[in-house]
Amino acid sequence: MNCTDAYDSLVLHMTETTQLETVAALLAWDQGTQIPVQGHAYRAAQMGALTRVIHKRNTDPKLFAALDACQELLENPEDDQQSANLRVWSKYLNRARKIPERLAVEVARNSTESEGVWAMARQKNDWKSFAPYLEKTVKLKKEVAATLDDSKDPYDVLIEDYEPGESVEELENIFTDLMETTQRILDAILGSSVRPDATIMKREFPQKTQEKMARQMVQALGFDFNMGRMDTTVHPFCTSVGPKDIRITTRYNEHDFAESFFGIVHECGHALYSQGIPAERFGTPCGRAVSLGIHESQSRLWENLVARSKGFWVYAFPQVQKAYPSLSSVDLDAFHFAANEVKPGLIRTDADEVTYNIHIMLRFKLERALLRGELSVQDLPEAWNTAMQKMLGITPETDAQGVMQDVHWASGLLTYFPTYTLGNIYASQFMDAAERELGDLNAMFEKGEFAPLLDWLRTHIHAHGSRYLPRDLVERVTGEKPSAKALCTHLSRKYGELYSLSLENC
Amino acid sequence: MNCTDAYDSLVLHMTETTQLETVAALLAWDQGTQIPVQGHAYRAAQMGALTRVIHKRNTDPKLFAALDACQELLENPEDDQQSANLRVWSKYLNRARKIPERLAVEVARNSTESEGVWAMARQKNDWKSFAPYLEKTVKLKKEVAATLDDSKDPYDVLIEDYEPGESVEELENIFTDLMETTQRILDAILGSSVRPDATIMKREFPQKTQEKMARQMVQALGFDFNMGRMDTTVHPFCTSVGPKDIRITTRYNEHDFAESFFGIVHECGHALYSQGIPAERFGTPCGRAVSLGIHESQSRLWENLVARSKGFWVYAFPQVQKAYPSLSSVDLDAFHFAANEVKPGLIRTDADEVTYNIHIMLRFKLERALLRGELSVQDLPEAWNTAMQKMLGITPETDAQGVMQDVHWASGLLTYFPTYTLGNIYASQFMDAAERELGDLNAMFEKGEFAPLLDWLRTHIHAHGSRYLPRDLVERVTGEKPSAKALCTHLSRKYGELYSLSLENC
Repeated sequence: MNCTDAYDSLVLHMTETTQLETVAALLAWDQGTQIPVQGHAYRAAQMGALTRVIHKRNTDPKLFAALDACQELLENPEDDQQSANLRVWSKYLNRARKIPERLAVEVARNSTESEGVWAMARQKNDWKSFAPYLEKTVKLKKEVAATLDDSKDPYDVLIEDYEPGESVEELENIFTDLMETTQRILDAILGSSVRPDATIMKREFPQKTQEKMARQMVQALGFDFNMGRMDTTVHPFCTSVGPKDIRITTRYNEHDFAESFFGIVHECGHALYSQGIPAERFGTPCGRAVSLGIHESQSRLWENLVARSKGFWVYAFPQVQKAYPSLSSVDLDAFHFAANEVKPGLIRTDADEVTYNIHIMLRFKLERALLRGELSVQDLPEAWNTAMQKMLGITPETDAQGVMQDVHWASGLLTYFPTYTLGNIYASQFMDAAERELGDLNAMFEKGEFAPLLDWLRTHIHAHGSRYLPRDLVERVTGEKPSAKALCTHLSRKYGELYSLSLENC
Repeated sequence: MNCTDAYDSLVLHMTETTQLETVAALLAWDQGTQIPVQGHAYRAAQMGALTRVIHKRNTDPKLFAALDACQELLENPEDDQQSANLRVWSKYLNRARKIPERLAVEVARNSTESEGVWAMARQKNDWKSFAPYLEKTVKLKKEVAATLDDSKDPYDVLIEDYEPGESVEELENIFTDLMETTQRILDAILGSSVRPDATIMKREFPQKTQEKMARQMVQALGFDFNMGRMDTTVHPFCTSVGPKDIRITTRYNEHDFAESFFGIVHECGHALYSQGIPAERFGTPCGRAVSLGIHESQSRLWENLVARSKGFWVYAFPQVQKAYPSLSSVDLDAFHFAANEVKPGLIRTDADEVTYNIHIMLRFKLERALLRGELSVQDLPEAWNTAMQKMLGITPETDAQGVMQDVHWASGLLTYFPTYTLGNIYASQFMDAAERELGDLNAMFEKGEFAPLLDWLRTHIHAHGSRYLPRDLVERVTGEKPSAKALCTHLSRKYGELYSLSLENC
């Protein structure tokens, strides 16, 4: 097989695999939103059958032969698109072929079992039943890392799966700056007597109105319902069923405005990225999101930097107030402040813009220690609680509200958490760059003009898919290396104003 | 491989294939009910990828080897379940291996192309553009029949796919009786001055109320929403996404009560059958519907013999009248009569209980002639119109309303139509048998008691899956061979009463 034929056959093979993977995405979407109560057991069997088909395709010797035949193209690619596709595929396939079948099967089985046990254990606050599975997860993850490259820190090896090109060293550099500023802001806020009236967010919000409002808002932000849907689920997510079929989900709480509203804007941010990636490249890396960090930068940008901004509420509050009689006597500033209350809490997913990254740092620190063997799973709950008390001044009463709150570790997703904070960091860098080019974004938001920002993101970020490594993409788009500076400035300025504090010099 | 291992491996293989086939069913359901506008093109690609996977499984040499190794069990099965599974699989696989790859591919391609051309041609009433595809279909179908068994009438060979064990000779026997009675009833009705007020069915029926009513009604009939869903679509269908995940669909017309109401009860009838087949056998013939005729017998039974009965409306009319102000001054008898209006029309799917089978006979006659070479595709429209005029006294003005109205021939489904009338025939036989055992069903319907009938159907029909051939099942359940007698008696009695005619002696 010559180079070009080999490359073409790779494209064909991977494109068809993606078709089957998106079928699996549909199975999961349906299970999360539509399936009847008694349909779940068989859905697991269907997913198993499809997963076996996909696994077989991914380990097909013909695939590796084609990749090997592309070696010359990998060194002298025809264009940067081909270069990126080959770079991503060869990394992915070479990693896959290094892992022995036995280990791959064990990892998959353990994560399925572990997730099931975790769900039960969290419900019953039964850490002991879950601990052995997490121990096994840590052991297997270390084995995977050592198999792939035993000369490197296992953290650096594993994070490649979520944030290509990232490293513990770089993360620590960025995160240290962020944490200093964050703690200073948080201390100042906790010491301030100024407080929003947070009860505003806990009034009556009928589900039907929330749903109508959510549709209206995501459409205003740019979500294209001809290329997607919005449905109700238990654990909100966004999924790509096809290049022009991006589905977002939310849940409703009739006594909580923020949960669904900012939740759906967050998923909408993910969806806007997916809807903006060139459909004709779907199935190849250039037609796919580049990393979890970049994906999260898009969701966080729309959730925090757009939908929690003052400008946005100048535009949206009149509509919201009209829709909910319970807000009739509330004024814009009070609402905006309530939507941005900073308050240490136990649960990551409920955290505000300031404390959110503290939750991530805690997890980053602990999973690093676990992988380095500096912390045992047995000691994890205590380490969690101690760190929580130190960083946020509160201690969980139960492990369910502490170390067992997230599904990630249960699913085997170690080294995943930092991508959330990277998302927050990138979002601020992107927003600053967009503003440098487009002018006063807040003024646009006040008028409900979101298209200029979306177009800018489309052109500079979405259009590239995985063409550049995340760090390179950030530098290309913003002119600067990844850095917490923009986020620190944003947080200082915004929360200084809201809480009447002098934080400008952070 | 020994016999038992071979059998076990067959069960495993076929069960997993069914898992993937039901994934394809989900893709189709989603496409019919949920997919965003721009999702269709990629859905075709996904379906193609999945179809190739399934096809590969169905032509896997290991599968045929396993079947061959089961020969001894096929002759001396351990139980009648194993016997039925092997009978069905061996027939299916032996048919599959007789068809050369080239022919299978050509059939599949032609039916896809033909369906696309037909949809356009029907819209533009352009028979000429569609005719060559139908010619090719007839030619390919004859080739398939000859390849499978050139000693038999092609019709007999092909109908095996839809109604195992059926034959033209038997069909003609049954249908001749039915047609004589039907024509006599129809002539009497057309000669009668008694007429229902059919405008009752064409008043205002808001979609939301229709949907609520439909949910309420199918639930009352026994549809289990824990094992299924109900959604809106363009062309209503019922599909099994899993053994406990049966989905029905309908469409709404705000100025037509009957279309959606009887449509959804029809699909509900299909669903009740599917929900009643033992879930633990799903993936094997004993866990699958036995034929299209038996499937249709269930949908028709609930649609016509239950939901169009007087007893049903004694129960349901007060609810319906309460829901729709437009029916406030209508009385029960007038409504029941309007729901059973007999009127020759051009379109099969709109036909009443009496004229419906005439539409089928017309198609049966024409497709038999096409397959025997006694009629050319070129002469088909004229033959259609002539037969229509002769049998129903009306002539279509366009081919779109005539020979091109149904998708079946366009999709390559020749010999499919008779299963609709078989369904009507079986339904009456089953209903009579149920009544002999359970007593006055109409009196039960008046009280909204449908469970006794459903339980009876579950026990005598649904529980068996494909254990018995359709004709054997009918004889087992009713004590009689398939025969139009029960249907003729039902039609004579019912329409004699409604139209005040003496039809008892038909």
